Amino acid sequence: MTTKGKVIVLGGDGFCGWPTSLRLSAEGYDVTIVDNLSRRKIDIELGCQSLTPIETIENRLAAWKATSGQPISFVNLNVAEDYAELRDLIATIKPKAMVHFAEQRAAPYSMKSPKHKRYTVDNNINGTHNVLCAIVDAGVDVHLVHLGTMGVYGYGTAGMAIPEGYLTVKVDINDRDHEIEIPYPPHPGSIYHMTKTLDALLFYYYNRNDGVRITDLHQGVVWGTNTDETLMHPALINRFDYEGDYGTVLNRFLVQAAIGHPLTIYGSGGQTRAFIHIRNTVQCISLTISNAPQPGERVKIFNQMTETHRVHQLAELVARLTGAEIRYYVNPRTEALENELVVRNDNFMALGLKPITLNEGLLTEVYEVAARYQDRCNLDKIITDSRWRKDIPVDKVGSDSPVLTRTTANGQVKQAGVAP
Amino acid sequence: MTTKGKVIVLGGDGFCGWPTSLRLSAEGYDVTIVDNLSRRKIDIELGCQSLTPIETIENRLAAWKATSGQPISFVNLNVAEDYAELRDLIATIKPKAMVHFAEQRAAPYSMKSPKHKRYTVDNNINGTHNVLCAIVDAGVDVHLVHLGTMGVYGYGTAGMAIPEGYLTVKVDINDRDHEIEIPYPPHPGSIYHMTKTLDALLFYYYNRNDGVRITDLHQGVVWGTNTDETLMHPALINRFDYEGDYGTVLNRFLVQAAIGHPLTIYGSGGQTRAFIHIRNTVQCISLTISNAPQPGERVKIFNQMTETHRVHQLAELVARLTGAEIRYYVNPRTEALENELVVRNDNFMALGLKPITLNEGLLTEVYEVAARYQDRCNLDKIITDSRWRKDIPVDKVGSDSPVLTRTTANGQVKQAGVAP
Repeated sequence: MTTKGKVIVLGGDGFCGWPTSLRLSAEGYDVTIVDNLSRRKIDIELGCQSLTPIETIENRLAAWKATSGQPISFVNLNVAEDYAELRDLIATIKPKAMVHFAEQRAAPYSMKSPKHKRYTVDNNINGTHNVLCAIVDAGVDVHLVHLGTMGVYGYGTAGMAIPEGYLTVKVDINDRDHEIEIPYPPHPGSIYHMTKTLDALLFYYYNRNDGVRITDLHQGVVWGTNTDETLMHPALINRFDYEGDYGTVLNRFLVQAAIGHPLTIYGSGGQTRAFIHIRNTVQCISLTISNAPQPGERVKIFNQMTETHRVHQLAELVARLTGAEIRYYVNPRTEALENELVVRNDNFMALGLKPITLNEGLLTEVYEVAARYQDRCNLDKIITDSRWRKDIPVDKVGSDSPVLTRTTANGQVKQAGVAP
Repeated sequence: MTTKGKVIVLGGDGFCGWPTSLRLSAEGYDVTIVDNLSRRKIDIELGCQSLTPIETIENRLAAWKATSGQPISFVNLNVAEDYAELRDLIATIKPKAMVHFAEQRAAPYSMKSPKHKRYTVDNNINGTHNVLCAIVDAGVDVHLVHLGTMGVYGYGTAGMAIPEGYLTVKVDINDRDHEIEIPYPPHPGSIYHMTKTLDALLFYYYNRNDGVRITDLHQGVVWGTNTDETLMHPALINRFDYEGDYGTVLNRFLVQAAIGHPLTIYGSGGQTRAFIHIRNTVQCISLTISNAPQPGERVKIFNQMTETHRVHQLAELVARLTGAEIRYYVNPRTEALENELVVRNDNFMALGLKPITLNEGLLTEVYEVAARYQDRCNLDKIITDSRWRKDIPVDKVGSDSPVLTRTTANGQVKQAGVAP
């Protein structure tokens, strides 16, 4: 076979990492997955599991080899701890690109307790720093592709469209306006999001001092579960998180509808979020690898999303499709009641991204997956126990917690007892 | 005795931490020093020692008790690792303020090797995060005073005076200028400086989410060694770093003059830096503690410096005073040949800071300390082996390294072979 080059996928056993690894292998890349299986261990800690019955990484790779004829290598290694092994791996493989998914990626998990806050900071920052330090140490000219989040921007400024990473501003110097371009001021909403804003500074520094070529992908909320490759064999099935920590909002609504749980809107539902389907995620990463920054180019930043929606509108859409009821819960987060969000994604559009936007067919596909595996769902795990501050009460169906959310006469939803 | 309240000084055994602890104790604060003595261990690693013969922390504290009548407590604890002990200490003492010096603070040390880069990131980020997490976890309303660096700003933008942490800019929204205030865009010049820009985001987040009251002091290069308190007894003497990693530029020039080593200008000497005398450092921290942010106030950021100078001008001043010769060395750093630097320090001036600026008397005081202890100096340690990039050669007196710096006809100093 012809190879398009070698790629290492850090965190290649996870929800986005696994379908990405398969896609890159299918496209002809020689893929090595690096993963310490931490996401599977967190399932055990939380007493949870993927709604879909995922196979061990060994069985996954055997099934992929049998189905596609392509081998994918696997190295069990903790990028936040096993520095020498990571550096030696880069020096040996000399990949053209590394895709970096190897971070703790759930905001509610990062807020669970001091232990979880500290784990998220320690794991994500030492992990990303080790990757950068090892690339320089190994002396290999790797293109690092990092999965970041739209959440680093905060949620919009006075209706301005969020640009791709950099912002042009005017500064007053001696009473004259000077135009300068700056990294978009970060505005993290959780410990998890904070780690991604720290990552951005690590990238900024290593790019400037050592010339490391980097693309940082600010991704929206991912929905969906299948891609062309994960559908090729039952053992290739992707993970599907439905619970309160790792489940993402639209997928959660579809599971809740399938199992007869009220759709869980936290707060007013007026939060606007950016979304992307998992099929577009894998396409975006492939496009990013084929369009690497030039030597000396600053960090490339792309917004990896295709559309924005308010949370309550998504709930209403799912309710219409499935007949599910909607319930408003106390918001565990400290965030604005409502926000506008306008996002630019010109970079990916220019590279040929074909946006897969919300449609009934794909929603039904996810709903059917959820319905098929509903017996694997633990109802107690639907609502997270995580709280952004200790004084925010936990509000579960059947619990004694007060429902603090109500609809006012003019239709606006307000919360009592929780600071904005 | 009357007490002004309890204060914990993290890193209270170090160059700035020790005289600060003494000053706060002398002013009537009930001081607890927390330190893992890592700076003394790094001396051992580097085969170096303070030029001044500092006493053990136990002897220091006994001398202070005997001299002043005031006890200072000491807890040997690693803030980056011993989280539970740190939290319990805060919960028990319930200090009104914590001063946070407990970070690896030398840029050249942070660039020595991958091991040193990784230690600096791991130690500084986990340390600062543990402090913030523990304050929230302990439920104590502490004012956190952090020692940062002028280096987070980078070195100036088109002659604009560097403001105190926040920058007012205009953003174009639908063809109309909107004025917003943003955290000053960070621009770190080394791994060490990078960790301080990461700290700033930790402060931003914990202040917004948890209401932690924080003042971040962006300090210039500290010079001098004695304060009123360290002079009270020989066992109270402060440390004095002369070597290439931890020594700061003006103090280094004065030692070099005392021992007959050429004054070591790296690069052109056109770098402009902000300076502050150690006596002003301790005054600033005292002023900061008495002027804590209000509940709900955003992170206060002060520029803790009193004057700016170009490096070659300092060398010429020391050469004039002492007869020392000047030599230009290959710059180990990746930085601009020259920079302007104009800095605002209105906040401290308004609080009553009395600037101690460069004067012959104080320079002579430092020179005399250096001369008195010159036999403790190891000449091999004057020039650092650290390099910002592997391709920058080490240039020592008597070594084979080429001197790549020269003075041109028009008086401008240029470097060959080293990227800007």
